[in-house]
Amino acid sequence: MKINRNFDNLVPNYLFADVAKKTNAYIAAHPDKKVIKLGIGDVTLPLAPVVVEAMKKGAEDLAHKETFKGYPDYEGYEFLRQAISDYYKSFGVAVGADEIFVSDGAKSDCGNIGDIFSKDNIVLVTDPVYPVYVDSNIMAGREIVYAASNEANGFAALPDENVKADIIYLCSPNNPTGSAYNAEQLKTWVDYALKNDAIILYDSAYEAFITEDLPRSIFAIEGARKCAIEMCSLSKTAGFTGTRCGYTVIPKELERDGHNIYATWYRRQATKFNGVSWPVQCAAAAVFSEEGQKQIKENISYYQENARIIASALDELGIYYTGGKNSPYIWLKCPNNMGSWEFFDLLLNEANVVGTPGEGFGENGAGYFRLTSFGDRENTIEAVERIKKVLTNLSK
Amino acid sequence: MKINRNFDNLVPNYLFADVAKKTNAYIAAHPDKKVIKLGIGDVTLPLAPVVVEAMKKGAEDLAHKETFKGYPDYEGYEFLRQAISDYYKSFGVAVGADEIFVSDGAKSDCGNIGDIFSKDNIVLVTDPVYPVYVDSNIMAGREIVYAASNEANGFAALPDENVKADIIYLCSPNNPTGSAYNAEQLKTWVDYALKNDAIILYDSAYEAFITEDLPRSIFAIEGARKCAIEMCSLSKTAGFTGTRCGYTVIPKELERDGHNIYATWYRRQATKFNGVSWPVQCAAAAVFSEEGQKQIKENISYYQENARIIASALDELGIYYTGGKNSPYIWLKCPNNMGSWEFFDLLLNEANVVGTPGEGFGENGAGYFRLTSFGDRENTIEAVERIKKVLTNLSK
Repeated sequence: MKINRNFDNLVPNYLFADVAKKTNAYIAAHPDKKVIKLGIGDVTLPLAPVVVEAMKKGAEDLAHKETFKGYPDYEGYEFLRQAISDYYKSFGVAVGADEIFVSDGAKSDCGNIGDIFSKDNIVLVTDPVYPVYVDSNIMAGREIVYAASNEANGFAALPDENVKADIIYLCSPNNPTGSAYNAEQLKTWVDYALKNDAIILYDSAYEAFITEDLPRSIFAIEGARKCAIEMCSLSKTAGFTGTRCGYTVIPKELERDGHNIYATWYRRQATKFNGVSWPVQCAAAAVFSEEGQKQIKENISYYQENARIIASALDELGIYYTGGKNSPYIWLKCPNNMGSWEFFDLLLNEANVVGTPGEGFGENGAGYFRLTSFGDRENTIEAVERIKKVLTNLSK
Repeated sequence: MKINRNFDNLVPNYLFADVAKKTNAYIAAHPDKKVIKLGIGDVTLPLAPVVVEAMKKGAEDLAHKETFKGYPDYEGYEFLRQAISDYYKSFGVAVGADEIFVSDGAKSDCGNIGDIFSKDNIVLVTDPVYPVYVDSNIMAGREIVYAASNEANGFAALPDENVKADIIYLCSPNNPTGSAYNAEQLKTWVDYALKNDAIILYDSAYEAFITEDLPRSIFAIEGARKCAIEMCSLSKTAGFTGTRCGYTVIPKELERDGHNIYATWYRRQATKFNGVSWPVQCAAAAVFSEEGQKQIKENISYYQENARIIASALDELGIYYTGGKNSPYIWLKCPNNMGSWEFFDLLLNEANVVGTPGEGFGENGAGYFRLTSFGDRENTIEAVERIKKVLTNLSK
């Protein structure tokens, strides 16, 4: 009985555990201080009312024989897939309802999609990176190459023609750097993928935060239907982190190595997944209704205003950052060439503000720091004032 | 860019598609006939009232900032894991709340658990078999060996000391054969696994249908904590096929090949899964409440009575079968040495009753047929009367 030895190659990531440990130790030692957490990667605002009503109605359906629902379709109910297709249409992207798979979240799909690919593929990720892309491929035994996101490219890595890759993970707007690709940049990735016969796995979980004229889907780019799969989620769009629903788009014409990718993923899902809960699919469909869109946009605007408040303080202080616009994340360069953890300690001890050290997301994160906009407005304002005070004193 | 070529080794199973095609053709040709489906593998009774109320309350929690829930724990909320642990205790099995992983269903866990095992393991399944065990291991490239369930062993295969296996899938009460292992039989499997340093993956999805003095968990057997993982589901227990919730139990002391299995699975789930929806976990916990147990048992009794009605007709007719007791399935030998599809056609054309040909579940299913108890009482009675009439005429 042999274990998958690739698990031995996983590097334990204690980032959030260490953040929690240091934070809790500080709070225990200073019970009188009010510590504000701007490191939080989870949403805090409640679900939109119309979404909750739809979920309750879905629950009520299950209480009566006439409306009871058994096993759902593996790919999701048609009414939800059609609503997602219409949503894409609302920003000018054509995706068929029959190209959509509904799932319990983008993380599951990002991780499980590897099942359909050979282990003999080279995987490219941008660094800093959302750890799931790396760890799920280490588990599968694949070779991983890194494209550096850094100040020179605005933390939005572009392809290197000299690097060969078969599977490319892109996340835009990016977690953790908040940077978002424009159409021209994305086109270089699509061209690179087509030239290399590669597939792009495009994580668009933060597309709802885009405010400027930037692509909200890889399928806004010419050629993408021949080289890309897109994963999206309602977690940040509509506060579904605890409700669990996402979706993956696979163009019907996408083929590789003699296989139709849609059909292959369908076979995988039919074998190892049994669809998404009925009340959750009802709730998800309500997100895409006219009223639902109006209500979720209020929440998104709230987070966006938090991000703007943080970003303008950094502007005032003259600190380099990416994100803040088009993203709930603000990725900043630690002042005075401080290391990520050095800056973490400074903010915790002097401003009583908690953020996330960038080096936890990859080597290009060293010397950087992530703040998020998912907190309270009042706390965000107070945290920013404290940060400004500490950093102003620092530069004196 | 290479596809996982193991997908080429999957054998397309058109069983249910072919059943639907033949049934629909018959209905189209005979619009006046009332066709009754006893092939259905999905539940039909609504959720218990207390479960629906808990789900609605969970949905309402998400509507307010004070009670909102974000990312759930990967392994499930403690209150639900404790409720499951207490449920085990109610039939005399000690399983810690900290040994339980809550998931979106047993099928996901049965399929995904393979991630933590090397592809160089030999997998043993009993035949006839639930196709997920086979297909998920073909996708992973593992060698599969089959243990024959047949009339000689009451469709409850026992280990063959001459066969070497590393991973053993057992399902009891069994889908599709309805047979259930007794403690002595399960002990032979546990002993075999311990001797071979193998792991048993025990699917107990139908344990709630057990009425006789039979083990409801592999962990009722001495030694199982050193060689077994158990997967269970609320799909058939509480009508959760459309609600989606299951659980997997991994004893903390289970080790193989230098790895702790609980820790390895936790790492897999933390990387590729984001937990189960809050309202669904609330609903699941209600299943295990005193009132919930009372209410779900009414539904189970309803199905059990259907099974009894089918089984006693077969007794009258002198037809060999397994299941019917301790299981929602009745697995019968086609009379007059008919083939599975021959018998299917006879029942469809002469009795207007639809069942499932056994050969779709593996070679030992040839000449057998599956009926299920998940239909209406009235229809079940009518179907049974028609079957009796057709088979009585046949033997004349």
